[in-house]
Amino acid sequence: MSRGRFIVVEGSEGVGKSTQAARLAAFLRSRGITTELLREPGGTAVGEGIRDLVLASGEAIPRETELLLIVAARAAFVRQRVEPALSGGAWVVSDRYDLSTFAYQGHGRGIDLDWVEQVNRYATSGLTPDLYLVLDLPVRDGMTRLQRKDRPLDRIESETLGFLRKVRRGYVELAGSVACAELVSASGRPDEVEARIRDVLTGYFPGTFSARGSGGAGSRNGEPARGAKETR
Amino acid sequence: MSRGRFIVVEGSEGVGKSTQAARLAAFLRSRGITTELLREPGGTAVGEGIRDLVLASGEAIPRETELLLIVAARAAFVRQRVEPALSGGAWVVSDRYDLSTFAYQGHGRGIDLDWVEQVNRYATSGLTPDLYLVLDLPVRDGMTRLQRKDRPLDRIESETLGFLRKVRRGYVELAGSVACAELVSASGRPDEVEARIRDVLTGYFPGTFSARGSGGAGSRNGEPARGAKETR
Repeated sequence: MSRGRFIVVEGSEGVGKSTQAARLAAFLRSRGITTELLREPGGTAVGEGIRDLVLASGEAIPRETELLLIVAARAAFVRQRVEPALSGGAWVVSDRYDLSTFAYQGHGRGIDLDWVEQVNRYATSGLTPDLYLVLDLPVRDGMTRLQRKDRPLDRIESETLGFLRKVRRGYVELAGSVACAELVSASGRPDEVEARIRDVLTGYFPGTFSARGSGGAGSRNGEPARGAKETR
Repeated sequence: MSRGRFIVVEGSEGVGKSTQAARLAAFLRSRGITTELLREPGGTAVGEGIRDLVLASGEAIPRETELLLIVAARAAFVRQRVEPALSGGAWVVSDRYDLSTFAYQGHGRGIDLDWVEQVNRYATSGLTPDLYLVLDLPVRDGMTRLQRKDRPLDRIESETLGFLRKVRRGYVELAGSVACAELVSASGRPDEVEARIRDVLTGYFPGTFSARGSGGAGSRNGEPARGAKETR
């Protein structure tokens, strides 16, 4: 059985990560690819508990604690969800992964980027995605989208515009320097963003997605599809 | 105002850490020393949440996640509780601190000790106690004491004897190599253990505790008491 692919949707608050990750997973499934849709922090029992601690409004948390909590969740996420799914031949679409930590705790909170890399490497055991889709939107537009949702903002969403701008700039820089990271404009309607994501996908996995219905899961990047059935 | 002292009670399951930490705090208070009694993981809102995640029975947690959760709690503990108390002149008695991580996650779970030291140093910003009291008891005796308590065992207490023996051996080794760490036999009645702890205390802070009622807080180790009132 060939190993699945790992696709991560990244970006700052209100860019539409959850929406696009769900649409991407639905698209992959429509092409016969077994797909796990996951989110970070979370995706495991301990991870969901950590998510609640990190996002709880009104709770003061030192930045060192925030960093260590996030990577603690990631260590369980990789070992209990992502790695077993990929080994079993499924594709994984994750709403956030390690770039979030570089962007939020590194660029946003000012924690040394080398240290962020070191704890990330420990947490992930070096597992890197096949593709990062970094959704990009002006901070004010993201905030406007969030305010339209009918729920209170969490601790991170309630950060200052200055902080969120640092996070966005961090993402743009990361998209330019990290292997397999693509910056995708998140402006416009969800359908428009989804179409941009499909274009990137076709470029990354041409054997799987080049012509309608002709491909399948399991092809190597840039190579003809093979063993597609094994991952269905 | 002179800075307070930081005393940590360490040791494996069932050695009587909580009992002795509470007695020690009561003794210090009886000598007019403002004292904060704290426990780790915990002692802060986020830390108590982390404690619940780490100790919840029946939950599988990778060792990497366990390590990072524990040090995440420690980073908040140091910044929100210990450092403010010490700066304010209070003494701090803590049930567990960084040696627990060397003993349990390092010696017990086999995580590289250099890495344990590195994440600990990040979490504590290098804050080390004035004294570690490492309570020591054969593992079976500790288990017998736990079983006498009328509550279910948590995830760590339910570990195998083999694991708990590694933890105990780790503590003995740490007590022999770490500065300001003293191994104290935890055998016998609580009163007997408390008397041993008092002896160690007198040796460490002779200016404060050498003669009944003659000393006070704030003396330097091995020097005559001075500025005692400032920390009361």
